[in-house]
Amino acid sequence: MQLGVIGLGRMGQIVVDRVLDAGHDVVAFDLDAEAVATAADAGATPAEDLGDLAERLGEEKRIWLMVPAGEAVDATLEELEPHLTADDVVVDGGNSHFEASVRRAESIDAAYLDCGTSGGPAGAELGFSLMIGGPEWAYESMTPVFDAVATGPAGHDRMGPSGSGHYVKMVHNGVEYALMQAYGEGFELLANGRYDLDLESVARTWNNGAVIRSWLLELCEEAFREEGNDLGDVADHVAGGSTGTWTVQEALEQEVPVPLIYQALAERFGSRADDGRFGRRLANRLRYGFGRHEVQRREE
Amino acid sequence: MQLGVIGLGRMGQIVVDRVLDAGHDVVAFDLDAEAVATAADAGATPAEDLGDLAERLGEEKRIWLMVPAGEAVDATLEELEPHLTADDVVVDGGNSHFEASVRRAESIDAAYLDCGTSGGPAGAELGFSLMIGGPEWAYESMTPVFDAVATGPAGHDRMGPSGSGHYVKMVHNGVEYALMQAYGEGFELLANGRYDLDLESVARTWNNGAVIRSWLLELCEEAFREEGNDLGDVADHVAGGSTGTWTVQEALEQEVPVPLIYQALAERFGSRADDGRFGRRLANRLRYGFGRHEVQRREE
Amino acid sequence: MQLGVIGLGRMGQIVVDRVLDAGHDVVAFDLDAEAVATAADAGATPAEDLGDLAERLGEEKRIWLMVPAGEAVDATLEELEPHLTADDVVVDGGNSHFEASVRRAESIDAAYLDCGTSGGPAGAELGFSLMIGGPEWAYESMTPVFDAVATGPAGHDRMGPSGSGHYVKMVHNGVEYALMQAYGEGFELLANGRYDLDLESVARTWNNGAVIRSWLLELCEEAFREEGNDLGDVADHVAGGSTGTWTVQEALEQEVPVPLIYQALAERFGSRADDGRFGRRLANRLRYGFGRHEVQRREE
Amino acid sequence: MQLGVIGLGRMGQIVVDRVLDAGHDVVAFDLDAEAVATAADAGATPAEDLGDLAERLGEEKRIWLMVPAGEAVDATLEELEPHLTADDVVVDGGNSHFEASVRRAESIDAAYLDCGTSGGPAGAELGFSLMIGGPEWAYESMTPVFDAVATGPAGHDRMGPSGSGHYVKMVHNGVEYALMQAYGEGFELLANGRYDLDLESVARTWNNGAVIRSWLLELCEEAFREEGNDLGDVADHVAGGSTGTWTVQEALEQEVPVPLIYQALAERFGSRADDGRFGRRLANRLRYGFGRHEVQRREE
Repeated sequence: MQLGVIGLGRMGQIVVDRVLDAGHDVVAFDLDAEAVATAADAGATPAEDLGDLAERLGEEKRIWLMVPAGEAVDATLEELEPHLTADDVVVDGGNSHFEASVRRAESIDAAYLDCGTSGGPAGAELGFSLMIGGPEWAYESMTPVFDAVATGPAGHDRMGPSGSGHYVKMVHNGVEYALMQAYGEGFELLANGRYDLDLESVARTWNNGAVIRSWLLELCEEAFREEGNDLGDVADHVAGGSTGTWTVQEALEQEVPVPLIYQALAERFGSRADDGRFGRRLANRLRYGFGRHEVQRREE
Repeated sequence: MQLGVIGLGRMGQIVVDRVLDAGHDVVAFDLDAEAVATAADAGATPAEDLGDLAERLGEEKRIWLMVPAGEAVDATLEELEPHLTADDVVVDGGNSHFEASVRRAESIDAAYLDCGTSGGPAGAELGFSLMIGGPEWAYESMTPVFDAVATGPAGHDRMGPSGSGHYVKMVHNGVEYALMQAYGEGFELLANGRYDLDLESVARTWNNGAVIRSWLLELCEEAFREEGNDLGDVADHVAGGSTGTWTVQEALEQEVPVPLIYQALAERFGSRADDGRFGRRLANRLRYGFGRHEVQRREE
Repeated sequence: MQLGVIGLGRMGQIVVDRVLDAGHDVVAFDLDAEAVATAADAGATPAEDLGDLAERLGEEKRIWLMVPAGEAVDATLEELEPHLTADDVVVDGGNSHFEASVRRAESIDAAYLDCGTSGGPAGAELGFSLMIGGPEWAYESMTPVFDAVATGPAGHDRMGPSGSGHYVKMVHNGVEYALMQAYGEGFELLANGRYDLDLESVARTWNNGAVIRSWLLELCEEAFREEGNDLGDVADHVAGGSTGTWTVQEALEQEVPVPLIYQALAERFGSRADDGRFGRRLANRLRYGFGRHEVQRREE
Repeated sequence: MQLGVIGLGRMGQIVVDRVLDAGHDVVAFDLDAEAVATAADAGATPAEDLGDLAERLGEEKRIWLMVPAGEAVDATLEELEPHLTADDVVVDGGNSHFEASVRRAESIDAAYLDCGTSGGPAGAELGFSLMIGGPEWAYESMTPVFDAVATGPAGHDRMGPSGSGHYVKMVHNGVEYALMQAYGEGFELLANGRYDLDLESVARTWNNGAVIRSWLLELCEEAFREEGNDLGDVADHVAGGSTGTWTVQEALEQEVPVPLIYQALAERFGSRADDGRFGRRLANRLRYGFGRHEVQRREE
């Protein structure tokens, strides 16, 4: 089978490598010529531009987009569109909003599969988890590629119609925020608690047989091993947040309470309030207002 | 009527003043001779020590303790006890834990009234809200004093048996934390939102007729007037927390969910995490673990 | 001064009454002829339709819309527009989304004031709190009417440009949700706690001098008086939620944590989960999965 | 090596089996003769009572208690004590509170190891995660047994001095509550969201390579497979909560915010509020108070 891959960043290169390793052919393109060269070194056929890529794929094109969610996806599709027919299949493997995927699926002639991709760079060896939405025939036609990119046949499935793949991935990420914060609370308590503990040992012991064992907990173990028991100079500043925000927005629409996911997201916002949290500053002052408790002031 | 007042801090002096203003007699004592002199200037009879105070009160003593919750209450009671009989009444007007009040009520011969006192220094003019627990006859016998110290007859009531006064005050304070945080969230959003707003004007407009008008909101208005629209140098550091902690502990015992009160308390803890929040530092690092997102580091 | 009032529901009639009481003239219209008749009985000039209302107001029209937020506002504006010039002022006193108000202000020729109105039916006697956004000259020109509808001059203010009035009102409502839930948690704990308490007495005692006294707490007192100490047959089902949802959505946009407001909103959603909360049902089952704890099943 | 096992419930039997399988000798006792017989069938030496068990173990006794946390532990220790010397080691493998373990360690002559045990019945095959507190020599002397009961050498470690094992297990369980609730929120949103999803497929796809893969997520997958996509008749009623309550209590003591763990615990309490949530009923009524919104009433 032959696959076009557009977007050869860290994740795109992994897709190229895994598909090549499985014995398929890859035509690769990226705006960055160096990335194309890397893919070519790995065995892919380099394309000069999107038109060249389309031409090389011939009829019944199978194309995997691994470009940043947002405008880059639309720009790529716009340029690809003249080359696409109803027999072609385009997969968006990035973190697009599900509503954008629904819109794109309706606007292009080719079949459009939205593919939530989870596993991060570690997926280079293990393969990814792929949550896919879109037409069943298109999903079926891509099975060999999905088998290769995912951990295997169990690592991918069609969730439902267009948008459902990115929808399930969005919720996955919301849950991810909450899991990270849950482990964080546990370790924060242990780090400030009654015993002088070796947190790497705690994490390792838990990872071997405890109910809460998980891949994220293995990453906690790694973090303590590499950064030290007090996490060294790792800052209290959590970046990111778009997929978590989308999850909460959708939960508001559906009127489903997601207090843990919300709180995990709010902790990220709070970690970035460089000037202090205004509401807590007001509480500080109100305690003076009603009880004449001394106001804590900022130092010069 | 004659009242002994022990403990002449800010709140104790207000009790002395209001009881005197209502035409009653006061015998006043404090470990600090200056505070006793202030009370004497206001018209109270100074006592040299607790024995002297007890002697001056004669039979059917009525005594108001306004000493810091905790050991000071026990120490005072221990010293008073030889002078007390079953006809006497002792009021604890401080923020004692309700279980300590139950214990004290059982251990002394006099009737013991636990009296939650709310209103802060502003109560000097308006009078306090008094939530009282203990024997009905003792409560009734103190009515003239309670009328004077409270905003009037509507400002005090017997909640139930021993401990119930401090129990209701404990919950009052838990609610207080949540209300402060709720207003704080609203103003934090307005301070960071789409419009350049005059927060004092917002608070004043709300205080005149809006559903959320309250005394705490009047204190917000005062805070913006006195500290400025950005709260100037007021720090993100909220002290206190014992009564809120007790409220959550009791809610755990009773298995009653109090997520807002808990969160308001947790915000206080968080505002005092001088080294950053460990859990969020771990989340920062985990994002590198699974997604190779750059780790934010502390600057030197 | 002369005011046209469109929309004569409960709130609209209060506007009519308060403006008439202040000695101004009112021209009133509603799709419901009976409501128009009621306004006429109160002293307003009835209008047959929007054209008639516009004609009766002459030049420099001052119009107050008190119609349900959403399509009704747009439909009314569309019909009014041919009669409006740049000298006219339209006030939207309903709970419109601030972005809709910005859009409307830009699309009509007349000056547009978005006016958040708080106080509910109780405002009939006390007057409302009015948070107003839009052009300064338009706000100034309406001062006599705002003085009459609000609690007085302190009960209204211009928050800023278009949208700011409804923006501040939106946040007001978010805070309102949290305050209600905060009181609710306190009373829930007291109702399930160690003492057999008279909750009306608790609320009354608090309302007289305690830090947490407020109008909402007076409504709690009223609720216990009218429904009984256990709230009788009042159901665990909290309707509404749109303005709270908007507040959280805006806080997500601004990356401001509002955990109490979020949780108060989530409690409403939870109260309406007629089939039980799916996440808790899964937790029930998971406890069997890892610990063989008995699964609680629904009864037939 | 020879081990006495006291308490032959589900977990105790697993300990017996795994220790026997590893080639060690076991002397087993339980108040239930049938359980002793089962252990004997498996190859253990049955003991008639605790004295008999102690006698059969001889010098340098190694004893594993697997009895319910609380009074049963104290009762067993009291009866064992006359037979114990400073050369003996007792392991408490149950969910005791860490402070009880500290107290017990101080009160008995033998070395006392508190051993948090996680993994549930599934540990029969895989082995458990063992978090152990107490004297280092005692921990070392038990290594062969711990290797057998745990998943292997990586599945057990000495956390620190007495109490630290149960302390770490307590926090483990707090985290566990939050993880369960986090997955629950995700699936609740998916079950109520825009797509008609096969939740078992979602869980399976996630478990194969996704960031949030874990053992608890495998149990979710199992739950959907066995109970159906809508969880059939599984009730919204989550039992348990003691270790989660302990975790929050300790976090209150240490002033560490644990909002996700708290909320997960509060959800359990809420799921058991058979009469509805009082605070939400009050909110329902308050909406009538300020806005004349219709009160939802319980049906007869």
